[in-house]
Amino acid sequence: MSTMNAVDEGQQQLSSNLKEAMRRLASSVAIVTSRDQDGQPHGMAASAVIPVSMDPPSMLVAVNRDAGLYPVLLRSRRYCINLLADDQHPLLKPFSQTALREQRFRSDDWRDAWASGNSPLPWLDGAPAAIECEVDQTLDYGTHTLFVGRVVRVRCAPTEAATGTSAPQPLVWLAGQRARLAAAA
Amino acid sequence: MSTMNAVDEGQQQLSSNLKEAMRRLASSVAIVTSRDQDGQPHGMAASAVIPVSMDPPSMLVAVNRDAGLYPVLLRSRRYCINLLADDQHPLLKPFSQTALREQRFRSDDWRDAWASGNSPLPWLDGAPAAIECEVDQTLDYGTHTLFVGRVVRVRCAPTEAATGTSAPQPLVWLAGQRARLAAAA
Repeated sequence: MSTMNAVDEGQQQLSSNLKEAMRRLASSVAIVTSRDQDGQPHGMAASAVIPVSMDPPSMLVAVNRDAGLYPVLLRSRRYCINLLADDQHPLLKPFSQTALREQRFRSDDWRDAWASGNSPLPWLDGAPAAIECEVDQTLDYGTHTLFVGRVVRVRCAPTEAATGTSAPQPLVWLAGQRARLAAAA
Repeated sequence: MSTMNAVDEGQQQLSSNLKEAMRRLASSVAIVTSRDQDGQPHGMAASAVIPVSMDPPSMLVAVNRDAGLYPVLLRSRRYCINLLADDQHPLLKPFSQTALREQRFRSDDWRDAWASGNSPLPWLDGAPAAIECEVDQTLDYGTHTLFVGRVVRVRCAPTEAATGTSAPQPLVWLAGQRARLAAAA
Protein backbone atom coordinates (compact mmCIF):
# COMPACT_ATOMS: atom_id res chain seq x y z
CA MET A 1 0.00 0.00 0.00
CA SER A 2 1.38 3.38 -0.96
CA THR A 3 1.66 6.23 1.50
CA MET A 4 -0.79 8.16 -0.64
CA ASN A 5 -3.42 5.47 -0.24
CA ALA A 6 -2.83 5.43 3.48
CA VAL A 7 -3.35 9.18 3.62
CA ASP A 8 -6.54 8.94 1.57
CA GLU A 9 -7.86 6.16 3.75
CA GLY A 10 -6.97 8.14 6.85
CA GLN A 11 -8.90 11.09 5.47
CA GLN A 12 -11.88 8.93 4.57
CA GLN A 13 -11.89 7.35 8.00
CA LEU A 14 -11.79 10.82 9.59
CA SER A 15 -14.71 12.01 7.44
CA SER A 16 -16.66 8.92 8.33
CA ASN A 17 -15.92 9.39 12.04
CA LEU A 18 -16.82 13.08 11.86
CA LYS A 19 -20.15 12.21 10.23
CA GLU A 20 -20.90 9.86 13.12
CA ALA A 21 -19.88 12.59 15.60
CA MET A 22 -22.17 15.09 13.84
CA ARG A 23 -25.12 12.70 14.25
CA ARG A 24 -24.64 13.40 17.96
CA LEU A 25 -24.76 17.19 17.60
CA ALA A 26 -28.27 18.53 18.18
CA SER A 27 -29.23 21.66 16.28
CA SER A 28 -32.10 23.90 15.37
CA VAL A 29 -33.12 23.79 11.74
CA ALA A 30 -33.62 26.91 9.66
CA ILE A 31 -34.67 27.78 6.14
CA VAL A 32 -32.30 30.42 4.81
CA THR A 33 -33.89 32.57 2.11
CA SER A 34 -32.71 35.13 -0.39
CA ARG A 35 -33.79 36.62 -3.70
CA ASP A 36 -32.06 36.54 -7.11
CA GLN A 37 -31.55 39.38 -9.57
CA ASP A 38 -34.91 38.62 -11.20
CA GLY A 39 -36.68 38.91 -7.86
CA GLN A 40 -37.30 35.16 -7.57
CA PRO A 41 -37.22 33.71 -4.04
CA HIS A 42 -34.64 31.04 -3.13
CA GLY A 43 -34.19 29.01 0.00
CA MET A 44 -32.27 26.18 1.61
CA ALA A 45 -32.64 24.10 4.76
CA ALA A 46 -29.65 24.65 7.05
CA SER A 47 -28.53 23.53 10.46
CA ALA A 48 -25.04 25.13 10.47
CA VAL A 49 -26.32 28.46 11.78
CA ILE A 50 -24.80 30.29 14.76
CA PRO A 51 -24.67 33.76 16.27
CA VAL A 52 -21.25 35.39 15.94
CA SER A 53 -21.23 38.62 17.89
CA MET A 54 -23.77 40.88 19.59
CA ASP A 55 -21.68 43.97 18.72
CA PRO A 56 -22.39 44.24 15.89
CA PRO A 57 -25.35 41.85 16.01
CA SER A 58 -24.41 39.14 13.54
CA MET A 59 -25.09 35.59 12.41
CA LEU A 60 -23.18 33.00 10.42
CA VAL A 61 -24.41 30.38 8.00
CA ALA A 62 -22.23 27.78 6.27
CA VAL A 63 -23.31 27.06 2.68
CA ASN A 64 -22.07 24.34 0.34
CA ARG A 65 -20.85 25.96 -2.87
CA ASP A 66 -22.78 23.29 -4.79
CA ALA A 67 -26.05 24.55 -3.30
CA GLY A 68 -28.43 26.51 -5.53
CA LEU A 69 -28.56 29.23 -2.90
CA TYR A 70 -24.80 29.87 -3.05
CA PRO A 71 -24.63 32.00 -6.25
CA VAL A 72 -27.77 33.83 -5.14
CA LEU A 73 -26.17 34.80 -1.81
CA LEU A 74 -22.93 35.80 -3.52
CA ARG A 75 -24.83 38.29 -5.63
CA SER A 76 -27.62 39.48 -3.33
CA ARG A 77 -25.39 39.65 -0.25
CA ARG A 78 -28.41 39.32 1.99
CA TYR A 79 -30.29 36.47 3.59
CA CYS A 80 -33.01 35.71 6.09
CA ILE A 81 -32.56 32.90 8.63
CA ASN A 82 -35.99 31.46 9.46
CA LEU A 83 -35.72 29.21 12.52
CA LEU A 84 -38.37 26.51 12.16
CA ALA A 85 -40.93 25.57 14.77
CA ASP A 86 -41.43 21.87 15.39
CA ASP A 87 -44.84 21.92 13.70
CA GLN A 88 -43.30 23.51 10.60
CA HIS A 89 -41.32 20.36 9.82
CA PRO A 90 -43.33 19.62 6.62
CA LEU A 91 -41.57 22.65 5.07
CA LEU A 92 -38.21 20.92 5.31
CA LYS A 93 -38.66 18.37 2.54
CA PRO A 94 -39.18 20.76 -0.41
CA PHE A 95 -36.27 22.89 0.78
CA SER A 96 -33.96 19.89 1.05
CA GLN A 97 -34.65 18.27 -2.32
CA THR A 98 -33.91 19.95 -5.64
CA ALA A 99 -36.63 17.92 -7.38
CA LEU A 100 -39.24 19.54 -5.11
CA ARG A 101 -38.04 23.06 -5.86
CA GLU A 102 -41.44 24.04 -7.30
CA GLN A 103 -43.13 23.33 -3.97
CA ARG A 104 -41.00 25.85 -2.11
CA PHE A 105 -42.67 29.04 -0.90
CA ARG A 106 -46.13 27.55 -1.59
CA SER A 107 -47.13 27.52 2.08
CA ASP A 108 -49.40 30.37 3.12
CA ASP A 109 -47.05 31.06 6.00
CA TRP A 110 -44.42 32.59 3.72
CA ARG A 111 -44.57 36.38 3.71
CA ASP A 112 -43.13 38.64 0.98
CA ALA A 113 -42.01 35.60 -1.02
CA TRP A 114 -43.67 36.67 -4.25
CA ALA A 115 -43.37 40.40 -3.76
CA SER A 116 -41.96 42.16 -6.79
CA GLY A 117 -39.38 44.83 -7.53
CA ASN A 118 -36.85 45.84 -4.91
CA SER A 119 -38.61 43.53 -2.54
CA PRO A 120 -38.03 42.30 0.98
CA LEU A 121 -36.74 38.78 1.65
CA PRO A 122 -39.16 35.89 2.17
CA TRP A 123 -39.83 35.33 5.87
CA LEU A 124 -41.90 32.71 7.61
CA ASP A 125 -44.84 33.70 9.74
CA GLY A 126 -45.02 31.62 12.91
CA ALA A 127 -41.29 30.87 12.87
CA PRO A 128 -39.78 31.20 16.36
CA ALA A 129 -37.52 33.86 14.80
CA ALA A 130 -36.71 35.28 11.37
CA ILE A 131 -33.38 37.10 11.25
CA GLU A 132 -32.50 39.25 8.25
CA CYS A 133 -28.81 39.84 7.55
CA GLU A 134 -26.57 41.70 5.13
CA VAL A 135 -23.38 39.83 4.24
CA ASP A 136 -20.33 41.52 5.75
CA GLN A 137 -17.63 38.86 5.43
CA THR A 138 -17.19 35.56 3.66
CA LEU A 139 -14.65 32.81 4.16
CA ASP A 140 -14.20 29.90 1.75
CA TYR A 141 -13.13 26.66 3.37
CA GLY A 142 -13.16 23.25 1.73
CA THR A 143 -16.50 22.65 0.02
CA HIS A 144 -18.26 25.44 1.93
CA THR A 145 -18.40 29.21 2.26
CA LEU A 146 -19.09 30.88 5.59
CA PHE A 147 -21.35 33.91 5.25
CA VAL A 148 -21.09 36.29 8.20
CA GLY A 149 -24.02 38.70 8.10
CA ARG A 150 -24.80 41.83 10.02
CA VAL A 151 -28.32 41.57 11.44
CA VAL A 152 -30.59 44.29 10.07
CA ARG A 153 -33.99 43.03 11.27
CA VAL A 154 -35.31 40.46 13.72
CA ARG A 155 -38.86 39.14 13.84
CA CYS A 156 -39.86 36.93 16.76
CA ALA A 157 -43.16 35.05 16.95
CA PRO A 158 -45.05 36.89 19.68
CA THR A 159 -45.50 35.40 23.12
CA GLU A 160 -48.30 36.41 25.42
CA ALA A 161 -47.59 36.67 29.09
CA ALA A 162 -51.28 37.24 29.76
CA THR A 163 -52.37 33.95 28.23
CA GLY A 164 -49.21 32.06 29.12
CA THR A 165 -48.45 31.46 25.44
CA SER A 166 -44.75 30.74 25.11
CA ALA A 167 -42.45 30.84 22.10
CA PRO A 168 -43.10 28.05 19.60
CA GLN A 169 -41.18 24.83 20.26
CA PRO A 170 -38.21 24.76 17.84
CA LEU A 171 -37.58 22.02 15.32
CA VAL A 172 -34.51 20.17 16.62
CA TRP A 173 -32.46 17.79 14.49
CA LEU A 174 -30.48 14.92 15.97
CA ALA A 175 -29.08 11.72 14.45
CA GLY A 176 -30.60 12.50 11.06
CA GLN A 177 -34.12 12.97 12.32
CA ARG A 178 -36.48 15.23 14.19
CA ALA A 179 -35.95 15.10 17.94
CA ARG A 180 -38.77 15.97 20.27
CA LEU A 181 -38.24 18.09 23.33
CA ALA A 182 -39.89 16.95 26.52
CA ALA A 183 -42.29 19.32 28.23
CA ALA A 184 -40.50 21.74 30.55
CA ALA A 185 -40.21 20.46 34.12
CA MET B 1 -32.76 63.48 19.70
CA SER B 2 -29.66 63.34 17.52
CA THR B 3 -29.33 60.94 14.63
CA MET B 4 -26.45 59.30 16.47
CA ASN B 5 -28.70 58.49 19.41
CA ALA B 6 -31.28 57.05 17.07
CA VAL B 7 -28.63 54.83 15.49
CA ASP B 8 -27.40 53.68 18.88
CA GLU B 9 -30.90 52.93 20.04
CA GLY B 10 -31.62 51.08 16.81
CA GLN B 11 -28.49 48.99 17.36
CA GLN B 12 -29.41 48.29 20.99
CA GLN B 13 -32.91 47.27 19.99
CA LEU B 14 -31.47 44.93 17.34
CA SER B 15 -29.09 43.35 19.87
CA SER B 16 -31.93 42.92 22.31
CA ASN B 17 -34.15 41.35 19.64
CA LEU B 18 -31.34 39.08 18.47
CA LYS B 19 -30.80 37.88 22.05
CA GLU B 20 -34.49 36.98 22.25
CA ALA B 21 -34.23 35.19 18.89
CA MET B 22 -31.17 33.26 20.11
CA ARG B 23 -33.14 32.03 23.13
CA ARG B 24 -35.20 30.16 20.52
CA LEU B 25 -32.19 28.50 18.87
CA ALA B 26 -31.56 25.03 20.30
CA SER B 27 -27.97 23.85 20.36
CA SER B 28 -25.68 21.19 21.68
CA VAL B 29 -23.25 22.32 24.33
CA ALA B 30 -19.54 21.56 24.18
CA ILE B 31 -16.49 22.17 26.28
CA VAL B 32 -13.69 23.33 24.01
CA THR B 33 -10.24 22.56 25.41
CA SER B 34 -6.69 23.48 24.61
CA ARG B 35 -3.30 23.69 26.31
CA ASP B 36 -1.06 26.68 26.94
CA GLN B 37 2.70 26.99 26.42
CA ASP B 38 3.32 25.73 29.98
CA GLY B 39 1.25 22.62 29.30
CA GLN B 40 -1.66 23.77 31.47
CA PRO B 41 -5.14 22.73 30.32
CA HIS B 42 -7.73 25.38 29.44
CA GLY B 43 -11.37 25.07 28.52
CA MET B 44 -14.57 26.97 27.81
CA ALA B 45 -18.24 26.08 27.46
CA ALA B 46 -19.44 26.82 23.94
CA SER B 47 -22.62 26.42 21.96
CA ALA B 48 -21.52 28.20 18.75
CA VAL B 49 -19.99 25.06 17.26
CA ILE B 50 -20.75 23.80 13.74
CA PRO B 51 -19.26 21.51 11.13
CA VAL B 52 -17.89 23.40 8.10
CA SER B 53 -16.89 20.90 5.44
CA MET B 54 -16.39 17.16 5.16
CA ASP B 55 -13.58 17.67 2.63
CA PRO B 56 -11.42 18.47 4.43
CA PRO B 57 -13.19 17.38 7.63
CA SER B 58 -13.47 20.58 9.62
CA MET B 59 -15.25 22.31 12.48
CA LEU B 60 -15.79 25.90 13.51
CA VAL B 61 -16.00 27.46 16.95
CA ALA B 62 -16.73 31.14 17.66
CA VAL B 63 -14.76 32.51 20.63
CA ASN B 64 -15.16 35.86 22.37
CA ARG B 65 -11.78 37.61 22.37
CA ASP B 66 -12.37 38.44 26.06
CA ALA B 67 -12.44 34.72 26.90
CA GLY B 68 -9.46 33.22 28.71
CA LEU B 69 -9.29 30.52 26.05
CA TYR B 70 -8.78 33.01 23.22
CA PRO B 71 -5.05 33.78 23.68
CA VAL B 72 -4.44 30.08 24.32
CA LEU B 73 -6.04 29.10 21.01
CA LEU B 74 -4.18 31.84 19.15
CA ARG B 75 -0.90 30.37 20.31
CA SER B 76 -1.58 26.62 20.45
CA ARG B 77 -3.59 26.62 17.21
CA ARG B 78 -5.33 23.43 18.28
CA TYR B 79 -8.48 22.59 20.19
CA CYS B 80 -10.71 19.70 21.16
CA ILE B 81 -14.51 20.05 20.95
CA ASN B 82 -16.07 17.82 23.59
CA LEU B 83 -19.81 17.51 22.97
CA LEU B 84 -21.48 17.03 26.34
CA ALA B 85 -23.94 14.30 27.22
CA ASP B 86 -27.05 15.35 29.12
CA ASP B 87 -25.78 13.70 32.31
CA GLN B 88 -22.51 15.64 32.06
CA HIS B 89 -24.30 18.96 32.69
CA PRO B 90 -22.61 19.47 36.10
CA LEU B 91 -19.36 20.11 34.18
CA LEU B 92 -20.84 23.24 32.61
CA LYS B 93 -20.79 25.51 35.66
CA PRO B 94 -17.02 25.51 36.34
CA PHE B 95 -16.31 26.02 32.64
CA SER B 96 -18.72 28.96 32.43
CA GLN B 97 -17.55 30.93 35.47
CA THR B 98 -14.06 32.36 35.84
CA ALA B 99 -14.31 32.22 39.65
CA LEU B 100 -14.66 28.42 39.45
CA ARG B 101 -11.62 28.00 37.23
CA GLU B 102 -9.86 25.82 39.81
CA GLN B 103 -12.64 23.24 39.61
CA ARG B 104 -12.15 22.66 35.92
CA PHE B 105 -10.63 19.36 34.82
CA ARG B 106 -11.21 17.89 38.31
CA SER B 107 -13.72 15.33 37.09
CA ASP B 108 -12.34 11.81 36.70
CA ASP B 109 -13.84 11.74 33.21
CA TRP B 110 -11.19 14.08 31.81
CA ARG B 111 -8.44 12.23 30.00
CA ASP B 112 -4.94 13.59 29.29
CA ALA B 113 -5.80 16.85 31.10
CA TRP B 114 -2.76 16.79 33.36
CA ALA B 115 -0.37 14.99 31.04
CA SER B 116 2.97 16.74 30.71
CA GLY B 117 5.36 17.73 27.96
CA ASN B 118 4.25 17.75 24.34
CA SER B 119 0.98 16.34 25.51
CA PRO B 120 -2.36 15.56 23.94
CA LEU B 121 -5.39 17.82 24.48
CA PRO B 122 -7.81 17.17 27.33
CA TRP B 123 -10.75 15.04 26.16
CA LEU B 124 -13.81 13.90 28.00
CA ASP B 125 -14.54 10.22 28.43
CA GLY B 126 -18.23 9.45 27.96
CA ALA B 127 -18.78 12.51 25.78
CA PRO B 128 -20.97 11.71 22.75
CA ALA B 129 -17.99 12.88 20.67
CA ALA B 130 -14.61 14.56 21.17
CA ILE B 131 -13.25 16.18 18.02
CA GLU B 132 -9.65 17.33 17.90
CA CYS B 133 -8.77 20.09 15.42
CA GLU B 134 -5.80 22.08 14.20
CA VAL B 135 -6.59 25.71 13.40
CA ASP B 136 -6.44 26.37 9.66
CA GLN B 137 -8.18 29.74 9.32
CA THR B 138 -9.37 32.48 11.61
CA LEU B 139 -11.74 35.37 10.98
CA ASP B 140 -12.21 38.26 13.41
CA TYR B 141 -15.68 39.72 13.47
CA GLY B 142 -17.02 42.13 16.07
CA THR B 143 -16.25 40.84 19.56
CA HIS B 144 -15.52 37.29 18.38
CA THR B 145 -13.01 35.27 16.39
CA LEU B 146 -14.07 32.30 14.27
CA PHE B 147 -11.61 29.42 14.48
CA VAL B 148 -11.91 27.00 11.56
CA GLY B 149 -10.07 23.81 12.42
CA ARG B 150 -9.10 20.81 10.36
CA VAL B 151 -10.21 17.67 12.18
CA VAL B 152 -7.27 15.45 13.08
CA ARG B 153 -8.95 12.97 15.44
CA VAL B 154 -12.48 11.96 16.38
CA ARG B 155 -13.47 9.94 19.42
CA CYS B 156 -17.07 8.76 19.71
CA ALA B 157 -18.53 7.15 22.83
CA PRO B 158 -19.04 3.53 21.78
CA THR B 159 -22.49 2.15 21.03
CA GLU B 160 -23.29 -1.51 21.20
CA ALA B 161 -25.63 -2.95 18.63
CA ALA B 162 -25.63 -6.25 20.55
CA THR B 163 -26.99 -4.75 23.76
CA GLY B 164 -28.99 -1.98 22.07
CA THR B 165 -26.91 0.70 23.82
CA SER B 166 -27.25 3.90 21.83
CA ALA B 167 -25.13 7.03 21.79
CA PRO B 168 -25.43 9.13 24.95
CA GLN B 169 -28.26 11.70 24.91
CA PRO B 170 -26.68 15.09 24.16
CA LEU B 171 -26.94 18.11 26.42
CA VAL B 172 -29.22 20.53 24.57
CA TRP B 173 -29.50 24.21 25.47
CA LEU B 174 -32.63 26.24 24.79
CA ALA B 175 -33.93 29.51 26.26
CA GLY B 176 -31.01 29.75 28.67
CA GLN B 177 -31.50 26.33 30.18
CA ARG B 178 -31.11 22.63 29.69
CA ALA B 179 -33.79 21.17 27.44
CA ARG B 180 -34.75 17.56 27.74
CA LEU B 181 -35.31 15.40 24.70
CA ALA B 182 -38.32 13.12 24.72
CA ALA B 183 -37.74 9.41 24.26
CA ALA B 184 -37.58 8.43 20.59
CA ALA B 185 -40.95 7.40 19.18
